[in-house]
Amino acid sequence: MIPKSGNRFFGSDHEQNQMTGVKILSPKGAITPTGTWSLGARAGDFIFVAGMRGIEPSSNTMLEGDEARIWQAFTNMKTIANSAGASLADCVRLVVYVTDMARLRPLVNKVQEELWAGGPYPPRTILQVSALNQNDIFEVEGTFHAPKKAGTQG
Amino acid sequence: MIPKSGNRFFGSDHEQNQMTGVKILSPKGAITPTGTWSLGARAGDFIFVAGMRGIEPSSNTMLEGDEARIWQAFTNMKTIANSAGASLADCVRLVVYVTDMARLRPLVNKVQEELWAGGPYPPRTILQVSALNQNDIFEVEGTFHAPKKAGTQG
Amino acid sequence: MIPKSGNRFFGSDHEQNQMTGVKILSPKGAITPTGTWSLGARAGDFIFVAGMRGIEPSSNTMLEGDEARIWQAFTNMKTIANSAGASLADCVRLVVYVTDMARLRPLVNKVQEELWAGGPYPPRTILQVSALNQNDIFEVEGTFHAPKKAGTQG
Repeated sequence: MIPKSGNRFFGSDHEQNQMTGVKILSPKGAITPTGTWSLGARAGDFIFVAGMRGIEPSSNTMLEGDEARIWQAFTNMKTIANSAGASLADCVRLVVYVTDMARLRPLVNKVQEELWAGGPYPPRTILQVSALNQNDIFEVEGTFHAPKKAGTQG
Repeated sequence: MIPKSGNRFFGSDHEQNQMTGVKILSPKGAITPTGTWSLGARAGDFIFVAGMRGIEPSSNTMLEGDEARIWQAFTNMKTIANSAGASLADCVRLVVYVTDMARLRPLVNKVQEELWAGGPYPPRTILQVSALNQNDIFEVEGTFHAPKKAGTQG
Repeated sequence: MIPKSGNRFFGSDHEQNQMTGVKILSPKGAITPTGTWSLGARAGDFIFVAGMRGIEPSSNTMLEGDEARIWQAFTNMKTIANSAGASLADCVRLVVYVTDMARLRPLVNKVQEELWAGGPYPPRTILQVSALNQNDIFEVEGTFHAPKKAGTQG
């Protein structure tokens, strides 16, 4: 709202947000948002990734199978975090939303064991909600920490 | 970040809070909390806003109408963010809670298009939950990034 | 977790994690995670605590009684935050999940009044979800801000 002079990090597409240094992430290989949202944002040393589901990026459609969807959702999150210099080990916060705690929590644990290679794991909150978009069964939201390298910008 | 000496904003009850620089936000024109919560907080370069609903600030009561409520909720969030120097373009994370995904998600998209003026949009997670306070139908929680200006405090 | 030295990017499993300074928290006196998650993490000046429920640390089992569980959940969160140098007054964001808004929200307010000693309170979002792990009735997720002291690491 208040123009911040100087300090222009990005190209001309996103002038207002450039001024304050919020960088919207839209990496290659990630899914395509179908609504009024972006995949992720970096601000300072933190990276905020939108809730990810089991959408296969090349077709932008939901996978079949609980475990495949959960794996894909985490992988989609990872793709976005990676694009901003963060690995899964840089995750500081996960919120996992499922539509069936009893059936899906064990699968979430199994997939995380594989992806985090035995740990350590990030702090996690897991919740059973009434519904997700497209009647999906799993969604994960992650926050990451990856200090900007000295001498680089954005 | 940097210890802030002096600079005591509050009474003696919250000494540690002052020391670390968490600043509670309670701007004019915002709604009035009716419980054990505050509207927002700034810490470092980040601003955390409490879940906002379609409460009209002058009467502190819920508006009628889905779209009106959604618009008001985002506007309430914006008022609080603005008070700490952040605009909607400085939003790094949104979580949207609805009680009916099919009916309300299109309205959320519509209102965001207007408020963000075509984008870019922040990362968003949208969830259908069982219920909100006062049987409301929409709530939004946002996090913002707005570096403190050099030479200012708090 | 592991001391931070040198300046390596991608080494053995959690090298980057050490590098970027995400510190996983596992303080004495806290509950024991039973899955692929950690209790909390510090990154920069922020502390992210996993969703806490009314688990009694010495037995790692759920307490009986709504109010006792809510009090214990907040206390578990506090233990973890304290271990990283944050008090309840340093909390910048709370999300409270209940399975019955009408019955539990007043109890949450009551417990917070006691724990925060009359306020000010952090920004809070309260939601009624379908279910929590172990069919629990209350869970709270908190984020805290506590600048690292000069001359210390991690």
